[in-house]
Amino acid sequence: MAEAAANGDARRRGVPRPTNPMVTPLLTDLYQFTMAYAYWKAGKHLDRAVFDLYFRKNPFGGEFTIFGGLEECIRFIANFKFTEEEIKFLRSVMPTCEDGFFEYLSSIDCSDVEVYAIPEGYVVFPKVPLMRIEGPVAVIQLLETPFLSLVNYASLVTTNAARHRLVAGKSKNLLEFGLRRAQGPDGGISASRYSYMGGFDATSNVAAGRLFGIPIRGTHSHAFVSSFMGLDEITDKALTSSDGSSKCEDFVSLVQNWLIKIQDSSSLRGTFGETSQSELAAFTSYALAFPNSFLALVDTYDVMRSGVPNFCAVALALNDMGYKAVGIRLDSGDLAYLSVETRKFFHVIEKDFGVVGFGKMNITASNDLNEETIDALNKQGHEVDAFGIGTYLVTCYAQAALGCVFKLVEINKQPRIKLSEDVTKVSIPCKKKCYRLYGKEGYPLVDIMTGEDEPGPKIGERLLCRHPFIESKRAYVVPQHVEELLRCYWPGNSF
Amino acid sequence: MAEAAANGDARRRGVPRPTNPMVTPLLTDLYQFTMAYAYWKAGKHLDRAVFDLYFRKNPFGGEFTIFGGLEECIRFIANFKFTEEEIKFLRSVMPTCEDGFFEYLSSIDCSDVEVYAIPEGYVVFPKVPLMRIEGPVAVIQLLETPFLSLVNYASLVTTNAARHRLVAGKSKNLLEFGLRRAQGPDGGISASRYSYMGGFDATSNVAAGRLFGIPIRGTHSHAFVSSFMGLDEITDKALTSSDGSSKCEDFVSLVQNWLIKIQDSSSLRGTFGETSQSELAAFTSYALAFPNSFLALVDTYDVMRSGVPNFCAVALALNDMGYKAVGIRLDSGDLAYLSVETRKFFHVIEKDFGVVGFGKMNITASNDLNEETIDALNKQGHEVDAFGIGTYLVTCYAQAALGCVFKLVEINKQPRIKLSEDVTKVSIPCKKKCYRLYGKEGYPLVDIMTGEDEPGPKIGERLLCRHPFIESKRAYVVPQHVEELLRCYWPGNSF
Repeated sequence: MAEAAANGDARRRGVPRPTNPMVTPLLTDLYQFTMAYAYWKAGKHLDRAVFDLYFRKNPFGGEFTIFGGLEECIRFIANFKFTEEEIKFLRSVMPTCEDGFFEYLSSIDCSDVEVYAIPEGYVVFPKVPLMRIEGPVAVIQLLETPFLSLVNYASLVTTNAARHRLVAGKSKNLLEFGLRRAQGPDGGISASRYSYMGGFDATSNVAAGRLFGIPIRGTHSHAFVSSFMGLDEITDKALTSSDGSSKCEDFVSLVQNWLIKIQDSSSLRGTFGETSQSELAAFTSYALAFPNSFLALVDTYDVMRSGVPNFCAVALALNDMGYKAVGIRLDSGDLAYLSVETRKFFHVIEKDFGVVGFGKMNITASNDLNEETIDALNKQGHEVDAFGIGTYLVTCYAQAALGCVFKLVEINKQPRIKLSEDVTKVSIPCKKKCYRLYGKEGYPLVDIMTGEDEPGPKIGERLLCRHPFIESKRAYVVPQHVEELLRCYWPGNSF
Repeated sequence: MAEAAANGDARRRGVPRPTNPMVTPLLTDLYQFTMAYAYWKAGKHLDRAVFDLYFRKNPFGGEFTIFGGLEECIRFIANFKFTEEEIKFLRSVMPTCEDGFFEYLSSIDCSDVEVYAIPEGYVVFPKVPLMRIEGPVAVIQLLETPFLSLVNYASLVTTNAARHRLVAGKSKNLLEFGLRRAQGPDGGISASRYSYMGGFDATSNVAAGRLFGIPIRGTHSHAFVSSFMGLDEITDKALTSSDGSSKCEDFVSLVQNWLIKIQDSSSLRGTFGETSQSELAAFTSYALAFPNSFLALVDTYDVMRSGVPNFCAVALALNDMGYKAVGIRLDSGDLAYLSVETRKFFHVIEKDFGVVGFGKMNITASNDLNEETIDALNKQGHEVDAFGIGTYLVTCYAQAALGCVFKLVEINKQPRIKLSEDVTKVSIPCKKKCYRLYGKEGYPLVDIMTGEDEPGPKIGERLLCRHPFIESKRAYVVPQHVEELLRCYWPGNSF
């Protein structure tokens, strides 16, 4: 009953539930509930509190972060309501607490909460709040853990994806292949979603493609290749031409003939001998199933002596039937060398057999790639068109966590501070406004914070911007454009 | 309709759905579907295939791994069935595939699949299959990504937890505090679950506590402390004694009096001056709310000059009322030094005020802890009773992924192998049996693999065990006990 009612409310407000059904008001640390009880006992639970959500240091030793996870936070608070069953569980966990508290918990939602945030996908910097959350202190505390859980990884992996895009360059295709190595199933789904936000082109993850409309990519694995024994396994050998005008009754023989022609071509003679028949059968079968999108994994046996020649034989046979093969994938070995050698092979085929465009066939690489390996490939020189990136992208292997925190900065209009012997851990008190200042050329110059009641920066007026902790970091800026960073996302929502 | 039917089947088999509702048959890589289609087109989809799921190297530079995630895999296959909506989505992704294929997909479940596995929670080693999965090749391929996604992180974090337990020792309490820094919400929930499996005592994560029956722990944060201005905020000052026999009308004054007594005690005079009144108010409020379980976070201002004296004043006042305080939590600074100083302080209180057991008060530490920092604390000497561990535990910061793979080892009774120039990446062909051999003292000596049809090891019979790749690694073993490692989990299930 309670669940049905909450569902109804959410629908009325038009904000869907969190993508992961496991994201409920119980997805939080117990101390949020014990504190809520202590606030309630002290009659302080309705005290109006302002919390800032921010991080202290850019990840990956870098100079920027991309903010992700906001939409899920808004979904969460829009649907924030305890079910009767959840209240019952909390009673069992906190058996000494008074009934009145659980009645209070049953009654709360987030209608009295305000969320101001920087838009999702923006470049953000340390100490400037990504979100400013205001409301009754007991309620806001309950939001701390889920908000951090929804923002920390989302922002981290978005940033990681953006860094991979920067090193790979605009022209390369970037494919996220990380589901199997992600930290749990929704680590995988979130990774696909936020990698796309960070600049990837597609994912292998079908569920993520469906949930978020991300383009999905994939062809075949090594197991597919080794599952075939030989060409005699292929029983249905017919292939209709691309335009439907003709039919090749024995596509297998067409492939075999092409393989012989390649072997015998003057430019390639002696570069390879007998290729794997298991592999040739697998490629041929895959081409018969997907003549329009034939892309072959060529490293199950030997890239240059088997995989690439076999691929070319099938691609040339497809070409005879009016189909254009897509290309190959390399998943092991020296990717720079193999991609260059493969490209040369493709150019020879184009030249020797007069197949225009064959040299430009797509080369995808996908073996434990990351920022450093792509950078190394760039320096060596390579012929890779697309990178498939898994483990290092989705687990953020180089730094597996972003340390966003959620700090009380004001209560009942009184500024609050968390002191620390470590100056970088001292919180910056007061409810704030945040601005991004732009220079003449339209580029952003600096983000600044002011107290809520202080006058904001004005266009064309010189302003002294000072670092909150490092006295020497200060600069005069004359903004040509001023953007207020924290915008209202709740109540109401902009998604 | 299709969903309802699948639900019914699952209930009949008695296996619940995966814990995370996002774990569906679409949670896989697209290439599993394109391969399934190519198998189907080639008439090979029913070929009987055997795949091994294994890893190649223990994580964290260690010598062991703990297997986690099996139960979720069995839940997944027990409920494996495509809904009409999922089939519709797949049609849109693979528009060139024939209708018959989607009819085939609609028809499949895992009734024709066999899963043999090592029991969950066992210590496991590289190359020995954790799971052996057998069935129609097209179906088994569809399981690859979800199985890896369910096993990789589960095993990694279980292992990480076990390593933390080893370094902390048996007597310490280990608390998992990682939800806010985990890789997404279900990274957090899985971390709590598998940390408990790996030897942790409790979690802060309420949702995980509810889902898996893990003990839940938590008290209050820095924000709670700084949300209080001073003692005059406490309006309801009364506390009934533990046995209900008396009532203190002004517990706040009782606390204040104790603070003066501590300040004036001959042993402590001069060690601290005025303590934070904000902190004292927070501690007093928390004690009024939870007199039976008072544990205070003492580092918001200054541990030795404010936090610990304030805690002791409240704990002594509680003691007057028949309540035993639990202890303190340190979340910053030099944990070895502060824990030792705090312990001394507690002993002085016990001695000066004759409160038996006060010196044994619990000290919890929780600031960015990991294996190395706990090891360093052990070497320095410390007085910590419980460790709260977050980021490094749940994100497996030291190594964020376990590289489990899923390799074809046999098809239609024919052994299959994946070759590689890197010998550690060569797969070990054939359907296998796996045994753990135990010596006289009852300790396990070695795990061995044999072909399915080979005779197994016999008790008391000398056996030459050889490493599959390293010729020099070989040893004669006379097992006193032989345990077959791979047991049948599906069909039927043992959970």
